[in-house]
Amino acid sequence: MTGPVPVSPSFDPIGGALERLHAEFVDDDRGSVADYIPQLGSADPGAFGLALVGVAGSVYEAGESERTFTIQSISKPFVYALALADVGVDAVLERVGVEPSGEAFNAISLEPGTGRPSNPMINAGAILTTSLVRAAAPAERFERIRDVLSRCAGRPLGVDDAVFRSEHGTGDRNRALAYLMHHAGSLTTDVESAVDTYFRQCSVLVTAVDLATMAATLANGGVNPRTGEEVLAPTVTEQVLTVMATCGMYDFSGEWLFRVGLPAKSGVSGGVVAVSPSQFGIGLYSPRLDERGNSVRGVAASEAISERFTLHLMHQVGRTAPAFERIGPDGPGSEGAAGPVTDGGVAVLAMQGYLEFASAEQALLALRTRAREGGYPGALVIDLDHVTRCHPVAAALLDTMIGAIEAGGVTVVTVDRRGRRLLASSGEFTVRHEAVAHCRSRLDPA
Amino acid sequence: MTGPVPVSPSFDPIGGALERLHAEFVDDDRGSVADYIPQLGSADPGAFGLALVGVAGSVYEAGESERTFTIQSISKPFVYALALADVGVDAVLERVGVEPSGEAFNAISLEPGTGRPSNPMINAGAILTTSLVRAAAPAERFERIRDVLSRCAGRPLGVDDAVFRSEHGTGDRNRALAYLMHHAGSLTTDVESAVDTYFRQCSVLVTAVDLATMAATLANGGVNPRTGEEVLAPTVTEQVLTVMATCGMYDFSGEWLFRVGLPAKSGVSGGVVAVSPSQFGIGLYSPRLDERGNSVRGVAASEAISERFTLHLMHQVGRTAPAFERIGPDGPGSEGAAGPVTDGGVAVLAMQGYLEFASAEQALLALRTRAREGGYPGALVIDLDHVTRCHPVAAALLDTMIGAIEAGGVTVVTVDRRGRRLLASSGEFTVRHEAVAHCRSRLDPA
Amino acid sequence: MTGPVPVSPSFDPIGGALERLHAEFVDDDRGSVADYIPQLGSADPGAFGLALVGVAGSVYEAGESERTFTIQSISKPFVYALALADVGVDAVLERVGVEPSGEAFNAISLEPGTGRPSNPMINAGAILTTSLVRAAAPAERFERIRDVLSRCAGRPLGVDDAVFRSEHGTGDRNRALAYLMHHAGSLTTDVESAVDTYFRQCSVLVTAVDLATMAATLANGGVNPRTGEEVLAPTVTEQVLTVMATCGMYDFSGEWLFRVGLPAKSGVSGGVVAVSPSQFGIGLYSPRLDERGNSVRGVAASEAISERFTLHLMHQVGRTAPAFERIGPDGPGSEGAAGPVTDGGVAVLAMQGYLEFASAEQALLALRTRAREGGYPGALVIDLDHVTRCHPVAAALLDTMIGAIEAGGVTVVTVDRRGRRLLASSGEFTVRHEAVAHCRSRLDPA
Amino acid sequence: MTGPVPVSPSFDPIGGALERLHAEFVDDDRGSVADYIPQLGSADPGAFGLALVGVAGSVYEAGESERTFTIQSISKPFVYALALADVGVDAVLERVGVEPSGEAFNAISLEPGTGRPSNPMINAGAILTTSLVRAAAPAERFERIRDVLSRCAGRPLGVDDAVFRSEHGTGDRNRALAYLMHHAGSLTTDVESAVDTYFRQCSVLVTAVDLATMAATLANGGVNPRTGEEVLAPTVTEQVLTVMATCGMYDFSGEWLFRVGLPAKSGVSGGVVAVSPSQFGIGLYSPRLDERGNSVRGVAASEAISERFTLHLMHQVGRTAPAFERIGPDGPGSEGAAGPVTDGGVAVLAMQGYLEFASAEQALLALRTRAREGGYPGALVIDLDHVTRCHPVAAALLDTMIGAIEAGGVTVVTVDRRGRRLLASSGEFTVRHEAVAHCRSRLDPA
Repeated sequence: MTGPVPVSPSFDPIGGALERLHAEFVDDDRGSVADYIPQLGSADPGAFGLALVGVAGSVYEAGESERTFTIQSISKPFVYALALADVGVDAVLERVGVEPSGEAFNAISLEPGTGRPSNPMINAGAILTTSLVRAAAPAERFERIRDVLSRCAGRPLGVDDAVFRSEHGTGDRNRALAYLMHHAGSLTTDVESAVDTYFRQCSVLVTAVDLATMAATLANGGVNPRTGEEVLAPTVTEQVLTVMATCGMYDFSGEWLFRVGLPAKSGVSGGVVAVSPSQFGIGLYSPRLDERGNSVRGVAASEAISERFTLHLMHQVGRTAPAFERIGPDGPGSEGAAGPVTDGGVAVLAMQGYLEFASAEQALLALRTRAREGGYPGALVIDLDHVTRCHPVAAALLDTMIGAIEAGGVTVVTVDRRGRRLLASSGEFTVRHEAVAHCRSRLDPA
Repeated sequence: MTGPVPVSPSFDPIGGALERLHAEFVDDDRGSVADYIPQLGSADPGAFGLALVGVAGSVYEAGESERTFTIQSISKPFVYALALADVGVDAVLERVGVEPSGEAFNAISLEPGTGRPSNPMINAGAILTTSLVRAAAPAERFERIRDVLSRCAGRPLGVDDAVFRSEHGTGDRNRALAYLMHHAGSLTTDVESAVDTYFRQCSVLVTAVDLATMAATLANGGVNPRTGEEVLAPTVTEQVLTVMATCGMYDFSGEWLFRVGLPAKSGVSGGVVAVSPSQFGIGLYSPRLDERGNSVRGVAASEAISERFTLHLMHQVGRTAPAFERIGPDGPGSEGAAGPVTDGGVAVLAMQGYLEFASAEQALLALRTRAREGGYPGALVIDLDHVTRCHPVAAALLDTMIGAIEAGGVTVVTVDRRGRRLLASSGEFTVRHEAVAHCRSRLDPA
Repeated sequence: MTGPVPVSPSFDPIGGALERLHAEFVDDDRGSVADYIPQLGSADPGAFGLALVGVAGSVYEAGESERTFTIQSISKPFVYALALADVGVDAVLERVGVEPSGEAFNAISLEPGTGRPSNPMINAGAILTTSLVRAAAPAERFERIRDVLSRCAGRPLGVDDAVFRSEHGTGDRNRALAYLMHHAGSLTTDVESAVDTYFRQCSVLVTAVDLATMAATLANGGVNPRTGEEVLAPTVTEQVLTVMATCGMYDFSGEWLFRVGLPAKSGVSGGVVAVSPSQFGIGLYSPRLDERGNSVRGVAASEAISERFTLHLMHQVGRTAPAFERIGPDGPGSEGAAGPVTDGGVAVLAMQGYLEFASAEQALLALRTRAREGGYPGALVIDLDHVTRCHPVAAALLDTMIGAIEAGGVTVVTVDRRGRRLLASSGEFTVRHEAVAHCRSRLDPA
Repeated sequence: MTGPVPVSPSFDPIGGALERLHAEFVDDDRGSVADYIPQLGSADPGAFGLALVGVAGSVYEAGESERTFTIQSISKPFVYALALADVGVDAVLERVGVEPSGEAFNAISLEPGTGRPSNPMINAGAILTTSLVRAAAPAERFERIRDVLSRCAGRPLGVDDAVFRSEHGTGDRNRALAYLMHHAGSLTTDVESAVDTYFRQCSVLVTAVDLATMAATLANGGVNPRTGEEVLAPTVTEQVLTVMATCGMYDFSGEWLFRVGLPAKSGVSGGVVAVSPSQFGIGLYSPRLDERGNSVRGVAASEAISERFTLHLMHQVGRTAPAFERIGPDGPGSEGAAGPVTDGGVAVLAMQGYLEFASAEQALLALRTRAREGGYPGALVIDLDHVTRCHPVAAALLDTMIGAIEAGGVTVVTVDRRGRRLLASSGEFTVRHEAVAHCRSRLDPA
């Protein structure tokens, strides 16, 4: 045995990829910094930071990933999450739609009659969403918003008061949207406090690393992967990611999803977040914007990451190993074999990988074939040792099948040497398989 | 060993789920049959069929799943696929956008100046898409469209001539859209032949099983799972699924994706297709439509399937087993252990399940820790036996890491007892690991 | 008595004013010639002709007032007149609105549901209007249109076949509008023949003098002042002038009426007509157009004419002589006196000028005062010798008053030495005064 | 000679006509009272008042013509007049357009980029117009508005404080419009004070008689016919009447002008004003509104008045007596004769009635013919004794002709026994005829 091999501790293919993206796009000086308020206009146009946080909690970064800027519209999905948590999806949907409008960020887009804004990612919808956050008083509402943003970022976030005052002083279009909604009855809180809170939430200070952490929290089912805190419920993150997928990049949303294929959100200060569900979150910062209000380098770098990492949501990884393998007295079977065989009076079905609908269906078909063609010996062992993840639909399908086989007089046990209980319930089926320990005891009484 | 156990050959949890959905919704008589042409108006309003085709090719069905009807707008995503294949994504995007418009199926939605329709799922965009299909003559264009639809369905599809003639005779709004586009220069073929072909493609006859097979072809990366034919390129199916996700259900698209979470498309004759990528396709038929032109029972049953099967695209399966396990002289390690250890002078890293970004990152971190803390013996074996699927980004990350370790003088071999070559190249990294056979020979020369 | 004085026969203040306008604007080379078809694009950009035709039938002209060009949209008000005459105002209003849309000439502007275009001056409304012209066949429809245009112009008008063919070949936007209306059910004739006829009517050849004569026909209550022919009913001309006032200049209509104050219509070939009701019509030709599609010099010269001639419809001529005067033994009374006095046993009320509501009211008040204060002798003579025009409302008011005085036992006679019968009936009152000849015989039996 | 004849002092054909209209429409109970604030909702739905004020100052009324209600949107044209007077037409046009939008009263209708509202009759345009009224402070601005409204009405008008407070409390849509304009930079005063003043002006209390007087002030060139005060400049009234003609009745404006043919304005409390220029103003009050926000009975009665009185702006009174007559030794000539003849060495041209373009042209043509055919004796007398009104264009044309004849050596004098100076200057011609007194002295030195 040789001694430790000097592998460079700085070896980092993910960070390296970010560094290469930074180098590649740092000279792209297209677009202009937003200047409707002086505080935004004075941003350094050359600033460019990237960060990626994986669901395991590691941080990768390049460029000015620690420079602070105001979060602006990137607050919207997180406040939407808070409103969903506070009042529930039905109450939120009644007041704010989820329909992409193909319109600019400041479009009016209110449903005739009800004043319901099209979606929570345009300003009107965001102001209304903010008003839905539960609070006894406006100040408490903002503190609850700041709290959820901070917990997603994993650190207490501050507010840029100068930006807030300036937004407040020049935000007449947003104030107009609020008055239109108040008139139509969709906005029911006081208009001035609603827009005040909205301007405050837009003025929260973040870095690219904060944004990446926030995005990773969404990628990780609502659990901040750096702090381990459960900030948002998994269902809420699914809803937020859906709206980001269809409405997150204003009137570029459709093309963004087509090209980049990740739920995302951009802000006027130059930030962009993008989420690869169950994998990681990205945060980018580059203040020069294109004509739709999206960060030029943020969009360009995101497209490059998505293409190089093949991250498009609809990407289908073509070749798949079978979800189960036949194991018998003669050793492991070959791929694609037609089902479990006996192994010393016990049929064994060894499943592996991510059990989804398709893999569960494969197993089902094999079990049926076996039942028709040969039947089972007294016991069927379903070995889940190499199962890494189990989708509810797979659990439900397998469970139903187990019940049917048991009804035929066969003892079925699911084994997992680590005691993991992988199968869970879904809405359609009742899951009622045995505990793993109990299975083992029946299988291997010695 | 007991003899064959009499498991009912009709045992079928998937088909059973469809039967329950059929029973649950068959009495829902809301909505009205489209009647703008007599041929649609005479449809049996009570007809209701459901079918599901998995990526393994099995067919599940309930109700009138073999009743024929005209495909109507459900032809759009498949003709879009054909156009993408024929002229390429850039040429198609230049002529038809991918931006959801939040508008009805017959909206005008042309970009000012260019006459470019918003997306290929509204009629204007569909007519333009049809015109992009390569053909020497209009008749050939339609035959190529019928051919791709038939190959996705797995059988030769016919045309309802009466519907075609009636659509042709009453289709002045579509004709108007075509003339607007021809005027603006976005439609460059002859207007009458463009709409004639479009009406013909809408008049192709299908069943719910056909639709499910077509959807499953999209779910399966373009390979018809029943015939095994590669009908569409994987990249094209990703693009088509993206557009179905944002624009497939007209002005209900955003809410559909929010609630159902599956790329889908509906048609005025009462058909609906929905796709669970990499899993299955669904086809539904029920001719009574809601006010947005979507099949009432088709939408209701789809929502139920999605909720019960937990099929939402953004659903994140929470608990995941680790992607690798430590195996050493002392037997398999516990979960979450910090990396590979030596096994008789050889360190072994046994990976399992679906290798994605997150699982590759886990392995990377473990390999780095090991390199820092203990170093490697002369050889590192990466055992891919239980890897079921490998995302390109994971392949790339691992490959880069292998290179770094090899640069430190350690022999790295990737093993797979079945000779599968799982690692593939991506745009970012160059993959250059050895063939599995070669690895084995070096590890186990005996 | 001196002999004939040599007043220059060329003396002509109206023609002189046109000459000055021509000189003033001939060098204005702003704007561009329409070039969507080559036949329009080849127009001489410098061409500039002006013509004015008074209701007495004289023609005044300057510049290239005899150069021919295609009438284009200026045909619209005249075809609208023909449709109103053919099917009546209610049937026309049901199919085409009269609401200005503030939109461009080629706006879609169809009422949701009905497909009723906003007004007959946008293309959609004009195509629909053309389809309402009564005809057994399309060819007859066009000939009836050409006939009414020719009779308004006072000469047979030809068609520019090259322009027609080119419009026909490139007119897909208009064809689209027609198909949209046919689809919605507002256009009920064959689409192709409707647009064919519309393109033909746009291709009729006119000169600035023709346009001025056509405008003068509208100014003159439908009687062509040069030929004396009654081409249109007075009511129809009022309706046409109203629509020209609100919708004639596309999205410049409101500002045109504000600045110029005359009902008008422009065409893409550079023609403009404007009407000063009861006074004259103007025709202008200058093919360079502004961004709204109106002739640059046509608009500028019209503004100048209106301002210099004080022609704004809403201009109120301030000072007015009284509508009646007191004539007695002591000679003509002074202005503003309180009514008729006796003249040898006979009270005389001598009216003068244009009897409108206001002047009739003045007389009414005087007659009432007289009745209250002094009463009438046996006879009241109302002398209408100097009345030049009588509005129906004035006739009605006076007639009612005459009846009341007669009911008091006073003989009332209205005299007019020329036998003119000026008082006419209106909808509100019944007019029943004696014939003038009869009055005279009773007043002056000798 | 008989004594005074007992003509009933109550004899009143105009008032009688109003009474008949009241009786005819009082039972029409279609429509609903506006109820967006309780103060409007509590209006008596049966209230119905009509009033007419002629340019001579008499008041005619029927029904509840003295019941007070808030003026609401009918304030808009008068405040527009005040703004035009304060800052001039160019400055006003730069900030508020004059283009009818075919849209509802509360439409947003702001020009992209500039935030310029389409016209001053929609709420956005009215709020902006109000902000243009010159004032050192908001309170002064409202007092100046109340002052102009009061002077048009002929009495000091009060404010309904309850309505004001309620409008202020519920006027969020108007507040939104103001914020949109403030954001776009078109509204430059403080938003809250702008809408406060606007709500106050809407809360001014009027009666139908007040409205009729205000309308009559516009009909009378800006001079209140009851008080004789010059409230508005004539040019301003022309501009206001034009905008009322195209934009006064919201999205019914085009059809109103088509059917009723009078500049008008309606308000949400049920008031309507209509103006017959140079004749009279009408005020109506009936609070039940149609779906466009116009008073049902107000519109119906206005249509009836217009039709029965033949008041349509575009109505052309057909038959006209000649504008001049030949008077010679042989007595008065017949109609239509070809010009002036000699009368004892003097040619006399006796003009009569309203001298407009057409009548002046008639005289011009006759004078030219005479000059060509016979020439003039030493003097030409133009007798204006029976001229009742003279349009500037007629004055200018005649003056130019007189100069030409004088240049030929003929003495021309214009006579008017009352010393009226009828001919005035216009922009095109220089008027330089002699004073009437001087003329007489030369003609009749005895």
